[in-house]
Amino acid sequence: MTRNLFITFEGPEGSGKSTQINKLCEYLKSKGADVLITREPGGTFAGDRIRSILIDKSSGDLEPETELFLMAAQRNEHFKKVIKPALDKGKVVLCDRYFDSSMAYQGYARKIGMERVKKLHDEFLQDYLPSSTILLSISPETGLNRVKERAQKNPDRIESESQDFHLMVSEAYEKLAKIYPERFIKIIADNKTPDDIFEEILKAINEKYGKLP
Amino acid sequence: MTRNLFITFEGPEGSGKSTQINKLCEYLKSKGADVLITREPGGTFAGDRIRSILIDKSSGDLEPETELFLMAAQRNEHFKKVIKPALDKGKVVLCDRYFDSSMAYQGYARKIGMERVKKLHDEFLQDYLPSSTILLSISPETGLNRVKERAQKNPDRIESESQDFHLMVSEAYEKLAKIYPERFIKIIADNKTPDDIFEEILKAINEKYGKLP
Repeated sequence: MTRNLFITFEGPEGSGKSTQINKLCEYLKSKGADVLITREPGGTFAGDRIRSILIDKSSGDLEPETELFLMAAQRNEHFKKVIKPALDKGKVVLCDRYFDSSMAYQGYARKIGMERVKKLHDEFLQDYLPSSTILLSISPETGLNRVKERAQKNPDRIESESQDFHLMVSEAYEKLAKIYPERFIKIIADNKTPDDIFEEILKAINEKYGKLP
Repeated sequence: MTRNLFITFEGPEGSGKSTQINKLCEYLKSKGADVLITREPGGTFAGDRIRSILIDKSSGDLEPETELFLMAAQRNEHFKKVIKPALDKGKVVLCDRYFDSSMAYQGYARKIGMERVKKLHDEFLQDYLPSSTILLSISPETGLNRVKERAQKNPDRIESESQDFHLMVSEAYEKLAKIYPERFIKIIADNKTPDDIFEEILKAINEKYGKLP
């Protein structure tokens, strides 16, 4: 049942993705599953170098399509060298950010167009879509507060973007959850403890796949 | 007349591109032209970091499409931030490797398909094709000898590729010269001095554009 289970976590900056991924990983491992946690951008040697270009402030303003191609480069490498082989071995793969981040950040907030981002993936990757995508949805107000908090702690190139940019990202995720209702599991993450959020995630996954693992 | 003159130099490893670019640059400057010499992969801050990922041996075997996306990322940044603005100011731009390198290396030698590489450029860049492309054509034998010579001097990730790979690159350039006869200026560079080669380049350019600059 856990075969080919590929779950991605998405959401605006500061939505609590890594906390929830770690919780789900611990839970699945306690049930005996072989779990791989990975993240984007990154996940491979070249991918981590690409990540640095994307998030280092020294990169300055990159052209939107440059960002998209860099995301596509690290994703292609990551999916073909790490994610697909792990799934083929029966592992559960949990990934912090993936395809929908490119849809939200480059496709929508950078205005390249989500359909063009999708088309690029369809043309050069095969069967890349995850089984499920857990969206940690936070209200624009909460999101902006978290962005402001992060802005005080040496934010990276993306975290330093304008409030409008971050609002666009949140808006994009809500759209994506509607475009892909079968794949998305949307969890309202506002004003809840990490444990409460995790309970909702687990409930949704169990409903979708039957008792895990 | 030199307005929007964008000349790229292409050819297999060791075909003598940089020598000829410098000669043409000196010549054009002596005639009063404002010349920008640049190169790919690279040409921008982010592009130089992408170049390192592409040529460092530590990157290991990258997936073909990963290479293509990295090339596309640096090219998009380079064309939109450096080449196009320079052309708009009336500069002559001379570029060491460009679009046709992706056609030859990723499209043909890495077997992604030249038409797919072209399509990717058409979809995300506009008016990116150079006015002229000078192909320094060397025989497969000369090419392999030069690759062998370089192999003894700490070759980079691409220079270290197999002989078959380098033969494919040479073959691709010959095909490209036939696909784009209007744009390509093919110079046989075997058994000629750099000065003789440069004389042929100058003659071909003068025939195409009238006396330069």
